[in-house]
Amino acid sequence: MDTLNERIAQLEEIVAHYESLGLNLSLTRGLPSPEQLRLSAPLLTALPVSELISEDNLDVRNYGGLSGIKEARELFGSLLHTTLEETFVGGNSSLQLMYAALSHHLFTAKNPWNEQGPVKFLCPSPGYDRHWAMLDYLGIEMIPVPLTGHGPDMDVVEKLVADDPAIKGMFVVPKYNNPTGESVSDAVVDRLAQMPTAAADFLLFWDNAYTVHHLTDEKTAIKDILQACKAAGNPNRVIHFVSSSKMTFPGAGVAAMGAATEKIAEMTHYFSKQIISFDKINQKRHVMFLKDDETIAAHMAEHAAILAPKFELIQTTFTHYFQDDLQSYVKWTAPKGGYFVHLTTQPGCATAIVEQMHELGVALTPANAAYPYGDNPLDNSIRLAPTYISLKDLQLALTILCSIIERVTLEKQTSQ
Amino acid sequence: MDTLNERIAQLEEIVAHYESLGLNLSLTRGLPSPEQLRLSAPLLTALPVSELISEDNLDVRNYGGLSGIKEARELFGSLLHTTLEETFVGGNSSLQLMYAALSHHLFTAKNPWNEQGPVKFLCPSPGYDRHWAMLDYLGIEMIPVPLTGHGPDMDVVEKLVADDPAIKGMFVVPKYNNPTGESVSDAVVDRLAQMPTAAADFLLFWDNAYTVHHLTDEKTAIKDILQACKAAGNPNRVIHFVSSSKMTFPGAGVAAMGAATEKIAEMTHYFSKQIISFDKINQKRHVMFLKDDETIAAHMAEHAAILAPKFELIQTTFTHYFQDDLQSYVKWTAPKGGYFVHLTTQPGCATAIVEQMHELGVALTPANAAYPYGDNPLDNSIRLAPTYISLKDLQLALTILCSIIERVTLEKQTSQ
Repeated sequence: MDTLNERIAQLEEIVAHYESLGLNLSLTRGLPSPEQLRLSAPLLTALPVSELISEDNLDVRNYGGLSGIKEARELFGSLLHTTLEETFVGGNSSLQLMYAALSHHLFTAKNPWNEQGPVKFLCPSPGYDRHWAMLDYLGIEMIPVPLTGHGPDMDVVEKLVADDPAIKGMFVVPKYNNPTGESVSDAVVDRLAQMPTAAADFLLFWDNAYTVHHLTDEKTAIKDILQACKAAGNPNRVIHFVSSSKMTFPGAGVAAMGAATEKIAEMTHYFSKQIISFDKINQKRHVMFLKDDETIAAHMAEHAAILAPKFELIQTTFTHYFQDDLQSYVKWTAPKGGYFVHLTTQPGCATAIVEQMHELGVALTPANAAYPYGDNPLDNSIRLAPTYISLKDLQLALTILCSIIERVTLEKQTSQ
Repeated sequence: MDTLNERIAQLEEIVAHYESLGLNLSLTRGLPSPEQLRLSAPLLTALPVSELISEDNLDVRNYGGLSGIKEARELFGSLLHTTLEETFVGGNSSLQLMYAALSHHLFTAKNPWNEQGPVKFLCPSPGYDRHWAMLDYLGIEMIPVPLTGHGPDMDVVEKLVADDPAIKGMFVVPKYNNPTGESVSDAVVDRLAQMPTAAADFLLFWDNAYTVHHLTDEKTAIKDILQACKAAGNPNRVIHFVSSSKMTFPGAGVAAMGAATEKIAEMTHYFSKQIISFDKINQKRHVMFLKDDETIAAHMAEHAAILAPKFELIQTTFTHYFQDDLQSYVKWTAPKGGYFVHLTTQPGCATAIVEQMHELGVALTPANAAYPYGDNPLDNSIRLAPTYISLKDLQLALTILCSIIERVTLEKQTSQ
């Protein structure tokens, strides 16, 4: 106990030093860095007059082409593994497409969910806080489902959806999940596609935000969910979302969705009531820049070259600090892609760690924000978003974080 | 009667001639012509690196700035006569902003309309068919209200809204109305702002799509609706929409809305659940190109120079053909701005005229489409959209149209 108090006293001094630095650092959100944004500079250059007419003969400047110009549907179709008729290319936000799909099924679809009674969704957690915010705003009850390291716990999922017709859907970030970094196994894809659901209109929101966003040479491939749903006789069970937000410009990219022809036609009809067409000039620019799978892969390798050192730094810093007798203090993920590292602290420590970091001028995403309603009884979840910060600042932030994790964990021990 | 039959026989021959031409012309939709699109070519050129940071210090390529970059809010604020806090700049579609506002108040607002029972809207008619399609899709009952030449008939409006709390709103195209071309008088603005409404949450959708789209030097100015609503103690009664769709590129413009600070904050919160930010690069490009009121006015004068001859051709062609004894066959508007001319035919003639034009290869907007549900018991409404077609083709289309109007009107007379 003496040693423990000595160490706590030591940490007080270290923290006092960090406090004196007057830092203002942030690891809160998954923003690409300025260096990454520069990779897409060609998108800012002039669009040649020769490119103003799309392959399906639309003037990209004028109205028309609600579901996207042909070449954009082909490009995003190659990411979604969908045909032209199964592909809808929209504006700059896949989140907006998800909200549209949610809002449509909730309020305007044939036999809409909100007329069938209370609506519930399954929420693999920890997950993406903006998914949860959307569901909460729309009054949908969120049921957390544990993750396994290769996707949601399917034993839990299958039981819940088989029993409760109020469970209308589920968000899944299938590859390099935000924030745990895990990807769904083939078995999970098959079970999601095949499972009997009490709700006939159960819908998977397949947010494949990081589909080409690898951090290592081991490029994770996941099984095609739409094909699996078709094979299982449930073709309308899924909408698959992708976007170029973290390939080109987060604020000015292009988003797309893939689904069975019937579902895409339904969503196209929905959109036809609210917009004449999305920005086809930006679609055209993106087709010219991203071209094809090979060009996209080469472009994403440049992103990875910038990002990988940041993720490696987290691994080496944590491995070095939390070795041997400290190894139980925190578990951290080692993602092979995506934008986040997830920390699992000792129970009851996450909120205090984030608060103390904040007091030292290092902003982290609020503890447990990756859980529906921000509600994690274990209080042990912290998301790190290391992409925007410089490598030098990241080094400093991580060093501080290690000290704070140790200090909070020790204080917790002494108070028990 | 002999003379009448002779004339009908003559017209048969004329029509047979037109039929032999095998035409394929369209006056259906309000599309700017390629010549107009070329006026905005500078928008297609490179965005300089010096312009990547907005005046409120946002990287226009990255996430952030949900309500729009400062300079875009200022530019559109000058069109809306609103402050920064009263201005929200979105994506490429004002229609989408309207749908969002409608959907929000219907489903997600505090005490949403759909939880208060059936919802009705007032629809000044003839009006914009996409407004009616949106209301119809959302299950809102549409109540047509007559127009007077200077906006909706306020005696009718005031009585309806005072009596029926289910009437939650009203679409108004206040300037150069689609399709009648009329603009609201100051008195109409004041009465709309001041009228007692049985619904406390009554909302005006002020679709000012043609606010700077003059066709003559007599630039119609209308009274500021938001100020009038504030003065009447009803600050949250209106949302004012504008867009650059028909200033720059219909498919890739920028849309904005103005309203009281509280209402804009409410809509911003709504949008925060579905999108991180709209395309700020396109906002920046538009600010650089449209700059200020003076630059916009000069730019719109170039549009007018292209459009005015088309509208003048309609006037001269109709005036020449339907003089003296034919003057009762059709009435046509002489708009001072906007994109449309509206024809009021003899009762029961509009559908036949559009059908016969279609058979001759000249597509017109479906007769009576400007009425809610396409339902106009008088069957006397045709919208002409002369902007996209070339002057030469327009001349031919109008000549044919005059013959068809005469023929259908005469046939109607003989059948009675």
